[in-house]
Amino acid sequence: MERLSFAADRASTPRDERLEGVTIAPLTAPLGAGAPVQAAIFRLAPGGRIARHPATVPQILAVLEGAGHVSGGDGELRPIAAGEGVFWPAGEEHETRTDTGLTALVLEAVGLEPR
Amino acid sequence: MERLSFAADRASTPRDERLEGVTIAPLTAPLGAGAPVQAAIFRLAPGGRIARHPATVPQILAVLEGAGHVSGGDGELRPIAAGEGVFWPAGEEHETRTDTGLTALVLEAVGLEPR
Repeated sequence: MERLSFAADRASTPRDERLEGVTIAPLTAPLGAGAPVQAAIFRLAPGGRIARHPATVPQILAVLEGAGHVSGGDGELRPIAAGEGVFWPAGEEHETRTDTGLTALVLEAVGLEPR
Repeated sequence: MERLSFAADRASTPRDERLEGVTIAPLTAPLGAGAPVQAAIFRLAPGGRIARHPATVPQILAVLEGAGHVSGGDGELRPIAAGEGVFWPAGEEHETRTDTGLTALVLEAVGLEPR
């Protein structure tokens, strides 16, 4: 048994121009290192966003706390709140933003399928 | 973009004698259906537990809310709370229990590696 922490004070702020007001606390090793699945806790501050970009692999974003808006390929922003998630297939353009802040699990894997 | 819900009212109570006071809301298709990764939100009521059993594949349990105790191969119960997780490799006997209730992400995949 190995312990891990994804508390806010263990999160980092990646240099990525698509991210505004976002910190990331990884749970797993990254896909880039050969891991079969990449999972991380994303914390978006009020006004934060993950700007529009295509999913590199199939992705689930599951909102754990707070609320915001997400869009998919059609660009229409739809409300999302804790207890709700979205699945974006590989290649789909998408965006996540929040006025009041949110915490989400982001899960990425080749072959990922939502329930 | 496909929407999904893992709210408490979307969770089910599996028939599994290892589970006491536990509901499960899946985020992904199950490993048994050929999915590369299985993720679900487990909600343990106060007094709930996932009784001791071996991990079938490498597993991460990440506590999202509440607190409890976990054990690994040595059987010693250690405290765990929101923001903390554990990784159990395939085959390791482990247990999760809580006096006050907890919500956790459970992530399982062949080849899963913690950060």
